[in-house]
Amino acid sequence: MNELSQDSEQRTRESVARQPLLKLYGVEVGALSRGYIELTASPRDFMRRTSGIVHGGVLAALADSAGGYALATMEDSPFLLTVEFKINFLRVAEGEQILAIGRVLKNGRTLAVAQADLYMTDAGEKKQVATALVTLIKKHNHGNQDS
Amino acid sequence: MNELSQDSEQRTRESVARQPLLKLYGVEVGALSRGYIELTASPRDFMRRTSGIVHGGVLAALADSAGGYALATMEDSPFLLTVEFKINFLRVAEGEQILAIGRVLKNGRTLAVAQADLYMTDAGEKKQVATALVTLIKKHNHGNQDS
Amino acid sequence: MNELSQDSEQRTRESVARQPLLKLYGVEVGALSRGYIELTASPRDFMRRTSGIVHGGVLAALADSAGGYALATMEDSPFLLTVEFKINFLRVAEGEQILAIGRVLKNGRTLAVAQADLYMTDAGEKKQVATALVTLIKKHNHGNQDS
Amino acid sequence: MNELSQDSEQRTRESVARQPLLKLYGVEVGALSRGYIELTASPRDFMRRTSGIVHGGVLAALADSAGGYALATMEDSPFLLTVEFKINFLRVAEGEQILAIGRVLKNGRTLAVAQADLYMTDAGEKKQVATALVTLIKKHNHGNQDS
Repeated sequence: MNELSQDSEQRTRESVARQPLLKLYGVEVGALSRGYIELTASPRDFMRRTSGIVHGGVLAALADSAGGYALATMEDSPFLLTVEFKINFLRVAEGEQILAIGRVLKNGRTLAVAQADLYMTDAGEKKQVATALVTLIKKHNHGNQDS
Repeated sequence: MNELSQDSEQRTRESVARQPLLKLYGVEVGALSRGYIELTASPRDFMRRTSGIVHGGVLAALADSAGGYALATMEDSPFLLTVEFKINFLRVAEGEQILAIGRVLKNGRTLAVAQADLYMTDAGEKKQVATALVTLIKKHNHGNQDS
Repeated sequence: MNELSQDSEQRTRESVARQPLLKLYGVEVGALSRGYIELTASPRDFMRRTSGIVHGGVLAALADSAGGYALATMEDSPFLLTVEFKINFLRVAEGEQILAIGRVLKNGRTLAVAQADLYMTDAGEKKQVATALVTLIKKHNHGNQDS
Repeated sequence: MNELSQDSEQRTRESVARQPLLKLYGVEVGALSRGYIELTASPRDFMRRTSGIVHGGVLAALADSAGGYALATMEDSPFLLTVEFKINFLRVAEGEQILAIGRVLKNGRTLAVAQADLYMTDAGEKKQVATALVTLIKKHNHGNQDS
């Protein structure tokens, strides 16, 4: 039921690999199933604040992406746009590795809602650093730029 | 009343200039007053999605930053952390220049709330592409990592 | 340009007057124009917390309603549903009168975004107690219950 | 570990029972453990929109309350205030019974974050109708009204 066709998996992995911002952040796709995706990244220097913690804007981009790509695993063709998202930072983001897990909560005809949970691995311990709710819209007409 | 001391202005400008992520995004500080800041950036290639529109994660980072630095203009010493933020994308983000305006709505003893409005200039026309509400906490003790 | 036809005005006023929850809260429509509405209410005892301040759930209902009815002034027929909203409480809500102002920020083909600002009048002084961003969807087919 | 002292349980149940708005909504406390609470309500007529679905403002009040009381099970004395919350409506809220489940995601020294999931039972089937993220602040000084 949560199985993903080889096609969908390949399409999603390639789509992540193509996004310039995610490439810059060193984002890689981990586990993947229908409505579920794991993204990982090892924070590079420019992804940290001067105090050393990972910049909230980086975490927000990963949350938004995890939500969107979780939905992408369920959709064949539409162009997906984020309508809005909200992120709560739960802990200062310290550590060596970021893990962003996206899960689709509701996939409607026009809109979908996903949750993204962000973790950091610090000295072998995994701690949740943020959680986000992401609302997405499926655009069947690429030419229309108004959501 | 909305005047900013030269000290506060310089401190805020230097703080933006020091942040590695904002440097990477080419963010510059424009107008600045007490509780108010304008940030601008010309989107570089890696800040756009494959379709050419500016990545939502970039806009989110600018919204978060505009909210935080608007508050920074009002605070002498504390270490500011974003508690959470919410961003609505109002229009597909096309154009040559991003303008993020941060304004403090409420500055309490422990928490503050700012709004960030994001615009893009496209062919000479300025259009709002996003709006965000940002909640911040003032940490008087840098050593405490739990918000 | 911001003029409202007599029809739209009457339709919006009647729609507010018909909502059982708003009737219970004693909500009345004040000023009204295209994309703009003011709702007022004098908090009844059950709308306050045991400490006397207005319950956040009441403010949230007014914020949601102000956003929705601001959009209703611009739409002839569709059934409007709130997709999501986010509310920041800026100050403890004390006083005799609540004023909720809803303004449409963006009215797209399928979705719209409104901001709602909530004020309380306390001893003659008006203070902002909350602000909210509301995302709405226009349903052209009432029978479809999935957003 | 998730056990709740009899005292905390009684205190939380009495606190819910005392809130005028929750009394009006017919809210009852179900299961309860440390950082977790279930609230139920059978929507009365005034809690529905004219179309029969439960008013979003009612769901929002239950979400806010479930988040707050989940935290109340973990705190002995402080006065808790909602800083902000965000709610996504996932499905039109039809049915006979509302179930709101609040869970604390992070309990820091000053702030806490809870998630609230709302379900409705319709013809024996339980469906999720909304999810919310709630940020709370613990006020150790009741006299201070600025968050």
